[in-house]
Amino acid sequence: MTMEKLVVIKIGGNVIDDAEKLKALLNQFAQISGKKILVHGGGKIATAIGDKLGIETKYVDGRRITDKETLDLVTMVYGGLINKKIVSVLQSFGCNAIGLTGADGNTIPATKRPVKAIDYGWAGDVLEERVNTRGLAALMHAGFSLVFAPLTHDENGNMLNTNADTIASTLAVALSGNYEVELMYCFEKRGVLMDINDENSVIHQIDKQIFEQLKKEGKLFSGMIPKIENALKAVEKGVTRVVVGHADDLKNNLGVETIGTIIS
Amino acid sequence: MTMEKLVVIKIGGNVIDDAEKLKALLNQFAQISGKKILVHGGGKIATAIGDKLGIETKYVDGRRITDKETLDLVTMVYGGLINKKIVSVLQSFGCNAIGLTGADGNTIPATKRPVKAIDYGWAGDVLEERVNTRGLAALMHAGFSLVFAPLTHDENGNMLNTNADTIASTLAVALSGNYEVELMYCFEKRGVLMDINDENSVIHQIDKQIFEQLKKEGKLFSGMIPKIENALKAVEKGVTRVVVGHADDLKNNLGVETIGTIIS
Repeated sequence: MTMEKLVVIKIGGNVIDDAEKLKALLNQFAQISGKKILVHGGGKIATAIGDKLGIETKYVDGRRITDKETLDLVTMVYGGLINKKIVSVLQSFGCNAIGLTGADGNTIPATKRPVKAIDYGWAGDVLEERVNTRGLAALMHAGFSLVFAPLTHDENGNMLNTNADTIASTLAVALSGNYEVELMYCFEKRGVLMDINDENSVIHQIDKQIFEQLKKEGKLFSGMIPKIENALKAVEKGVTRVVVGHADDLKNNLGVETIGTIIS
Repeated sequence: MTMEKLVVIKIGGNVIDDAEKLKALLNQFAQISGKKILVHGGGKIATAIGDKLGIETKYVDGRRITDKETLDLVTMVYGGLINKKIVSVLQSFGCNAIGLTGADGNTIPATKRPVKAIDYGWAGDVLEERVNTRGLAALMHAGFSLVFAPLTHDENGNMLNTNADTIASTLAVALSGNYEVELMYCFEKRGVLMDINDENSVIHQIDKQIFEQLKKEGKLFSGMIPKIENALKAVEKGVTRVVVGHADDLKNNLGVETIGTIIS
């Protein structure tokens, strides 16, 4: 039996912070036929609004700590301002989008990250096996395209701040039992580059073997290593392919002439 | 053919601003069996956050003017902070809620209010005939209870600030073709009172004739008149009955021993 296709696309802060870029990307997204999910990150807006509200952004080892005030801030900015802006723009392009957090429809249950060396506060670790795939499939079957904010909940009445990359891969993996899933990460480079300063040095294909070799040869930008590891894990768990590429290349990357990096 | 029942409940700012009251009401809402929709207003949180952000609340003739900054404010506070707080608490009570604005799923299209004597800014007048009843029915059929923030959109990429009472009656009327709809307005009084200072003076039943007589006799608090008029209009358009009562009485008001005012 061939399964229906589903594409899960994650867009990051750099696209969200630029109204024109965002609009162009959403226009591309609206034109994708079939089932689709967009997952958005936070962008700098949350920090800017937090500054005005006197909410200090706290980091430990480069990771944001979500205290109660910050949780309210990201709930309103990610779940309200950014999510509804994206939904309304998609509607203007004829895409019947519905904006969600992991709390809505209990789509993505999570647990508050356990306190070990660092207390991350109200940060959520998703419960992968508990994703409401039936509910997600019902929403898409009803004709809606889904737009996810990087938020989950603990099923005890608390929202949780959750990494957008993780939400995208969690949804992609969980739905790979129902759909043939393609997962795309849009960022500011054309793909995984051999030379970080040369946009023409895209590595077009990465699998486990190639990844190990590139890593051994020290050819990968360190920031990309966890991203590729997560992508490989998603493929192992059932996602058909993961594409890492530039937001502008979305359409091309969905076709056969992929410009970005295919991880499979 | 008997139609399935649907209850549409509107809660106002006074409930939203009090965490304990809100939790108690949501606990009651979670226990309602069958199809249900909750519509929430804004509360004072938006004004408090707006003050901190330096967004001035502007009123003309007692009505809030929604400039671009205020629109962003209400989008994040109503659509994000309040809506997701309600959804996550409902989830903790075992109610599979999904939070929406009129933009999500194009459920409630609207138009920016035309500028006449007053420019209300980004305020939305709902397009009653265009409510996406099919989409709403599909969401409820999938097992979700719906939680609406007082926001709509103009289908051109803009969110619109919209009165919560209007959203509740619009949804109730639009869905009365698919369901036997009961519409409930929860507020801080036990019902429509004969004597504003006496909670025991609830008028238990109002219809068009009784309304006209009470109005003629000057027995109605002026603030209640438009509310009753809207309720009577909803009944005329297909809603089975409208109940106006206290948030604490929700459960009783849904049963046969209604404490509040029944408008039919």
